[in-house]
Amino acid sequence: MRNKKGQAFGEFDLIERMTGPAGIFSKNLRTGIGDDCAVISGDASFDILLTSDLLVEKIHFDRRWFLPEQIGGKAFLSSLSDIAAMGGLPEFALVSLAVPRSVAGREAEALYRGIRDAAGQFKVTLAGGDLSGSDGRIFIDMMHVGRIEKGRAVLRSGAKPGDRIFVSGTLGDAALGLRALQSDLKIESAEPFIRRQRMPEPRITLGRALSSGRLASAMIDLSDGLSSDLGHLCKSSGVGARVRFKDLPVSKDYRRVCMKLSVDPVSNLLHGGEDYELLFTVPPCDLMGLKQARLPVPVVEIGEILTVSEGLSVEFPDGGCIELASGGYDHFRMDG
Amino acid sequence: MRNKKGQAFGEFDLIERMTGPAGIFSKNLRTGIGDDCAVISGDASFDILLTSDLLVEKIHFDRRWFLPEQIGGKAFLSSLSDIAAMGGLPEFALVSLAVPRSVAGREAEALYRGIRDAAGQFKVTLAGGDLSGSDGRIFIDMMHVGRIEKGRAVLRSGAKPGDRIFVSGTLGDAALGLRALQSDLKIESAEPFIRRQRMPEPRITLGRALSSGRLASAMIDLSDGLSSDLGHLCKSSGVGARVRFKDLPVSKDYRRVCMKLSVDPVSNLLHGGEDYELLFTVPPCDLMGLKQARLPVPVVEIGEILTVSEGLSVEFPDGGCIELASGGYDHFRMDG
Repeated sequence: MRNKKGQAFGEFDLIERMTGPAGIFSKNLRTGIGDDCAVISGDASFDILLTSDLLVEKIHFDRRWFLPEQIGGKAFLSSLSDIAAMGGLPEFALVSLAVPRSVAGREAEALYRGIRDAAGQFKVTLAGGDLSGSDGRIFIDMMHVGRIEKGRAVLRSGAKPGDRIFVSGTLGDAALGLRALQSDLKIESAEPFIRRQRMPEPRITLGRALSSGRLASAMIDLSDGLSSDLGHLCKSSGVGARVRFKDLPVSKDYRRVCMKLSVDPVSNLLHGGEDYELLFTVPPCDLMGLKQARLPVPVVEIGEILTVSEGLSVEFPDGGCIELASGGYDHFRMDG
Repeated sequence: MRNKKGQAFGEFDLIERMTGPAGIFSKNLRTGIGDDCAVISGDASFDILLTSDLLVEKIHFDRRWFLPEQIGGKAFLSSLSDIAAMGGLPEFALVSLAVPRSVAGREAEALYRGIRDAAGQFKVTLAGGDLSGSDGRIFIDMMHVGRIEKGRAVLRSGAKPGDRIFVSGTLGDAALGLRALQSDLKIESAEPFIRRQRMPEPRITLGRALSSGRLASAMIDLSDGLSSDLGHLCKSSGVGARVRFKDLPVSKDYRRVCMKLSVDPVSNLLHGGEDYELLFTVPPCDLMGLKQARLPVPVVEIGEILTVSEGLSVEFPDGGCIELASGGYDHFRMDG
């Protein structure tokens, strides 16, 4: 559901181009292409959330650093994050899998087991799927179906100037974990970062708290990185934003492990993807409500929504301010 | 949603193995893995149908014989057939696409255009999807979401001994069309068969008539071929069947084109896939109702459901009777 990937074809955002108003035939479509999930009308009390995420070997994961079970688990959990980003409750999933002959048999079973175990963790029912051959790579397409109370889905498009920007958890961990896996150095303190790279924690409970409490005006999950995903949210909302670098939450040992791995801690924090934390905006009148809410994960305020003409920027402690250009993952740029 | 593909891994049917009773967490799941679609409870008046179909280049289609638009159109229409096979009304689709660089740009646009045009033909709203790179092949995963009146979904599992077996349209056409495309001969009378190979016609309206009239006790679409798909239906229903060869409906010119292309007309009729006609069973008490129903496509009776111990067989006009073993497409057998 990430429209960003469409940039792969240069100026065309194919998935968005694919549908115009002329392509919307159902009166039940509340939100279509361009958000984390599509929202469709269920009955009088709930809406249905739909999302699909395609994971391709060597682009989204590498068998050198992941066991088949870990690939399956990560495919499931990372795609489930789109349901969290709407404030929804996951319910069903469909799995389409293409595997080369060399992976058939026990390895494919292990991959499925990883999916099944992750589904069990979130009480998601695997309701179908498909299986095919492939030439060399593993392809996993995960489709999730969730529910949410009528009209409560938190879209990307609801942010307004003056709203405060929050994130959950810590940033840059998963990207740092990937660098640790890619490195020849064995660094014990990098283990927690490697775990975050291997096993995302979709913030379902946090998303539920925010949507049911009507606390967030807009929300997205951090899959591509802060710069990219804040950019998507701002584009959808027609706003700008300023982020305070000093307030970005980092893990214990973050800087130390960055140093050992020769990773630029600033760039990794702003652009590193796959943390699957939630980025959301809160109107000033709801700040007290947020403060009083019992949330399952720490959240911190990192900046403010501005008008679109003020652009997207990050403010550093020395008073300097730079444009926050999207530096997240481009699937085609790194492919081949 | 085709459980057959699981046979690719020998004894394991991975998709079925993936879920046991322990993996069903939602009370809203009415029918899970193993039918054409999953059926989940919507509200008091309707159920929701979910299905996904993965199409892989060189396994499911070949760029030598299909323009990008035709690939997109066929991917959409063939997968939509699973909604027809339940008697459902299609409403939304999600498209996940992996394309190699060599196909990016105009060709990928044409592929999407084929999908969009096919969706428009059935008034299906494209509600989302994903896009990624690939190494060499095109991968298309189509997910369909449909609706059906509560409790009216026609499953594979409802056939009982004594029920009559019907099919719509004509059989063996699409497989013959593929042979015509693969042949160096240019045969004008093969054109209609090539069209059926290139552009399936999911029998949505027929499926709707059968489900709303409660006329069919079990139903499946003919994607893998008569032998395979009747086998799936019988296995799900715990029954056997006998088919009368003389009653299998064939197109005008079928035998003549088979001859010109050196295709065995019997084997092609029994095992040729991709016709996307509906195969369904009707209890004796509903035969009159079926006869009186205004159906959009001709249907013919081709045999009868027997007990499981009587097996699956085909009876020839000379009185001979052979076991109808599954001879449909095996995705791994032909891959590589």
